[in-house]
Amino acid sequence: MPETISVGRYLFERLHQAPIGLNSIFGVPGDFNLTLLDKIDEVDGLQWRGNANELNAAYAADGYSRIKSAMGDGSGGLAALVTTFGVGELSALNGVAGAYAEHVGLVHIVGIPSIASQQKQLLLHHTLGNGNFDVFRHMSAHITQTTGILHDESQATAEIDRCIREAYVNQRPTYLAFPTNMVDVQIPIESLDKPLDLSLPKNDEGSEAEVIERVLDMISNAKDPVILVDACAARHDCTREAKQLIELTKFKFALTPMAKGSRHIHEDDDRFVGTYVGTLSYPQTKEAVESSDLVLSLGAMLSDFNTGSFSYSYQTSNVVEFHSDYTKIKKAQYPNVRMKEVLNKILKSSQLKEAIKNYKPAEIKKDPFPKEDVEPASKLTQHYLWSALSTWLRDGDTIITETGTSSFGIIQTKFPRNAVGISQVLWGSIGYSVGAACGAVMAAEEFDPKNRVILFVGDGSLQLTVQELSSMIRYKNKPYIFILNNSGYTIEKLIHGETAEYNNIQPWKHQKLLETFGGEDIENVRINTIKDLNNIFSSPEFAKNDKIRVIELMLDVMDLPENLVQQAELLAKTNSG
Amino acid sequence: MPETISVGRYLFERLHQAPIGLNSIFGVPGDFNLTLLDKIDEVDGLQWRGNANELNAAYAADGYSRIKSAMGDGSGGLAALVTTFGVGELSALNGVAGAYAEHVGLVHIVGIPSIASQQKQLLLHHTLGNGNFDVFRHMSAHITQTTGILHDESQATAEIDRCIREAYVNQRPTYLAFPTNMVDVQIPIESLDKPLDLSLPKNDEGSEAEVIERVLDMISNAKDPVILVDACAARHDCTREAKQLIELTKFKFALTPMAKGSRHIHEDDDRFVGTYVGTLSYPQTKEAVESSDLVLSLGAMLSDFNTGSFSYSYQTSNVVEFHSDYTKIKKAQYPNVRMKEVLNKILKSSQLKEAIKNYKPAEIKKDPFPKEDVEPASKLTQHYLWSALSTWLRDGDTIITETGTSSFGIIQTKFPRNAVGISQVLWGSIGYSVGAACGAVMAAEEFDPKNRVILFVGDGSLQLTVQELSSMIRYKNKPYIFILNNSGYTIEKLIHGETAEYNNIQPWKHQKLLETFGGEDIENVRINTIKDLNNIFSSPEFAKNDKIRVIELMLDVMDLPENLVQQAELLAKTNSG
Repeated sequence: MPETISVGRYLFERLHQAPIGLNSIFGVPGDFNLTLLDKIDEVDGLQWRGNANELNAAYAADGYSRIKSAMGDGSGGLAALVTTFGVGELSALNGVAGAYAEHVGLVHIVGIPSIASQQKQLLLHHTLGNGNFDVFRHMSAHITQTTGILHDESQATAEIDRCIREAYVNQRPTYLAFPTNMVDVQIPIESLDKPLDLSLPKNDEGSEAEVIERVLDMISNAKDPVILVDACAARHDCTREAKQLIELTKFKFALTPMAKGSRHIHEDDDRFVGTYVGTLSYPQTKEAVESSDLVLSLGAMLSDFNTGSFSYSYQTSNVVEFHSDYTKIKKAQYPNVRMKEVLNKILKSSQLKEAIKNYKPAEIKKDPFPKEDVEPASKLTQHYLWSALSTWLRDGDTIITETGTSSFGIIQTKFPRNAVGISQVLWGSIGYSVGAACGAVMAAEEFDPKNRVILFVGDGSLQLTVQELSSMIRYKNKPYIFILNNSGYTIEKLIHGETAEYNNIQPWKHQKLLETFGGEDIENVRINTIKDLNNIFSSPEFAKNDKIRVIELMLDVMDLPENLVQQAELLAKTNSG
Repeated sequence: MPETISVGRYLFERLHQAPIGLNSIFGVPGDFNLTLLDKIDEVDGLQWRGNANELNAAYAADGYSRIKSAMGDGSGGLAALVTTFGVGELSALNGVAGAYAEHVGLVHIVGIPSIASQQKQLLLHHTLGNGNFDVFRHMSAHITQTTGILHDESQATAEIDRCIREAYVNQRPTYLAFPTNMVDVQIPIESLDKPLDLSLPKNDEGSEAEVIERVLDMISNAKDPVILVDACAARHDCTREAKQLIELTKFKFALTPMAKGSRHIHEDDDRFVGTYVGTLSYPQTKEAVESSDLVLSLGAMLSDFNTGSFSYSYQTSNVVEFHSDYTKIKKAQYPNVRMKEVLNKILKSSQLKEAIKNYKPAEIKKDPFPKEDVEPASKLTQHYLWSALSTWLRDGDTIITETGTSSFGIIQTKFPRNAVGISQVLWGSIGYSVGAACGAVMAAEEFDPKNRVILFVGDGSLQLTVQELSSMIRYKNKPYIFILNNSGYTIEKLIHGETAEYNNIQPWKHQKLLETFGGEDIENVRINTIKDLNNIFSSPEFAKNDKIRVIELMLDVMDLPENLVQQAELLAKTNSG
């Protein structure tokens, strides 16, 4: 038994240790990170998962982290990606920024030149040629919770722990610069015995007491409260609390688009009123949410696409917003009253039962999911697709939808129990879903190879990140890749420039992609009609995720989910406003 | 004739007007730039060239700019790319940073939300969700010459002109944020009549006079001077001056790797001694450069890969470095003595003739390009490839080599007259060459459809940016795409981890790429042997760039150009140092 380990290995052991528990590390090799990558192999059970490029690696890490968060038994999710100095790290920035915007925990580890060559200000390749080695870290500082650099041997483990902790606790990316000369520095192996401190900061007691008192008071005075579960409830590990609150109070509840597929929150629940997207909601959902006289909002992320372009119109000012780092009651903000702790205290409060004793559960009009009869021979439409999908999905599926027609269409789909929804609705970077699928399928299959990961991506978005199909082939993952072939950027055509050349793309032979990327155990399907879709959705063979599949959905150029047409009109107003 | 035009159109008219003269605009549409893109069509002769993603668009703009600079009759080069706020612009950063590092002029135009929605701090999609709309511009400020934003109608044309001018004059990227509400603001059409001021700042007179006096003095005292032409000579439009200096003085001259394929500088020139890469140079070149008693360095870019890991070992301290923004004589720096103006003054100085009157042109040992007899049936090697390539290239070819074995191997190739070399040796972002080829072929074919653009890219690097093949198919370009298939990141294997899993890649079927991306008039070739290569290089049909071609070169995993083995050893020392 050696008495020391290298700092490089320490980093990866920390990421693999419970409770973080990573089994995969994403990224792209580069000459300033190669010796660091050697250390991954030294950690039992940890695998290098090389991506085709760094942006895709960041997306993959994001998808992996979301699945760890959704399926893990620990609290939050985390993932790690390794890039190289300058060229590598900058390519990843858009993906890292997306994780920042959407509260996804990840550590971006960057292999950088040795401290000695930095001090000499050498004009190394991958520099700007001006001797400034710190510029890239400064750029990343804008889109990360914190940045760290291993300058000093005596501080190395503390700095590593800090970067992991900050990413995990805040569910945001952090940046860790790892100079080549630090990789093999030896430290006592006992450093690994000290558990990572991943505890949340404690709430401010006085503020919290006031919040609890006011919330209980508002609950006891309300006739018809509604609970609105949003994305940060899942990201910050509060879906158990949300579920308890629903079960205890019997209040009706809705999900936002970004919260669809949140753990513990089931769409077949008696008290579920549907997906709330402001004016874009189905009428019964809109009515159910907006008529309430108290809104308890958990983990709100109030972006335009998540709210129907900010079109919430509650009929009450009694709104309580629980956030990961503060609480807001009507207009009053309470910093340092964090959702998780305060919700648990409310749930345990003896006064909660008292507050709801006169509450009579509101009646709920059910089935916000439309169905209709269609001619089997008729051409496939998105309207049919998203409803029919409800029948094919099963317990535990992960459904990833690209920003565009898919992320709007999926609102129409009823999710089964324990479904995990992934969609980057706030950041909205097209191409994200393909990279995210790569990371998500890696994580989901680590939990159980039978877990299905189902991607919906448009032909336009696919072009940005297509090479990540190759990584899924390389690692023998078995995702379903539904490609919506509508000959271009349909969502952009809807917003502006329906016939403009800039919204067109080069047509690809999607049926050849898997083969070209070296896929062997593959299946390609093309769906033209309603009947074609019904056939695969009723096939027991197709339901088994035993190979990687491309399902090409042939759609009219301007075929759209209904709610998207309305969103585009609202968006045009915002843009011109 | 309308009396006003929109600010959006003004921007594109300015970019299309002489002397900038752009005919293509690169980028990716996004909802904050769609109305701006409409204006491209209003400019006669200007085309939108949509890329598959933003990183590739930045690379394409970089390649386009380099060709405009190399083939245009104006002075510097320029290119423009358009991305959308947040998601789009961040994906382009690595490409923009590369243009910054390597002195390539481009304008990065970013469509951003309206000023009104910014002032309301709306949580729009593509934001970080924190109401901060300026964060992305701050990130770009680190890697651009200047950033601008069109806040104010009255300042709009001045701000546009400033961003174009700064990019052009400094040969560096600039950043221009274009809010949606500014696109259709009307301005007088006469604004276009005022010529763009693209003049260089004047040199400081006193400093310049001292520089000229000292340089002439050093020349007259030197027995055997050498002129070393580096990349910034071409980027800052000083190759005409370099050529005049060589012709006037008859001094011997060498090129650096980054300067190979610089306009007006011919490798068949009597006075050419070869490519100088420090200890990695061929012996006769090394001897010729290092034995000189005066080194006149034009546009030096002293990066590790460009210098054989900083292994220059002149036997003299008489070194004059002419740079785009300063001059250095021995240890003395002269800020604001810019290369172009001071070189012209030296060339016109009556004292120059006097200074060289006793100079006897040094004898030059010729042919630094190795040839050898090989068995036609034997397996293709890089050593053979790079020499044989010298015979196939022809006047005016553009040769693009990826960072990796290609950018080292090409040093061995003798370039014909008016060849243009493109290689991103300082920044060294793998995948660059595919995007750059897309932009370069667009520009080269605009000058003359017969211009051949020849790309050499490894199978590993190709995976990062492969979708840009699709854009070249879309726009009916006719490049030659040589793919070095050596089963992974060979250059990384050489540096560290020859058998490490992280240096492997998923094997692709390269022969299927063009077809999969919808190519119709295509040719695929696979080269296994010396004879196969000789066959295509002697074929008149193959020599005609009448279709897009993939030529897959099957190479052993560790087959390498000789100089690269040495570079790797030097690099390993720097990294561990």
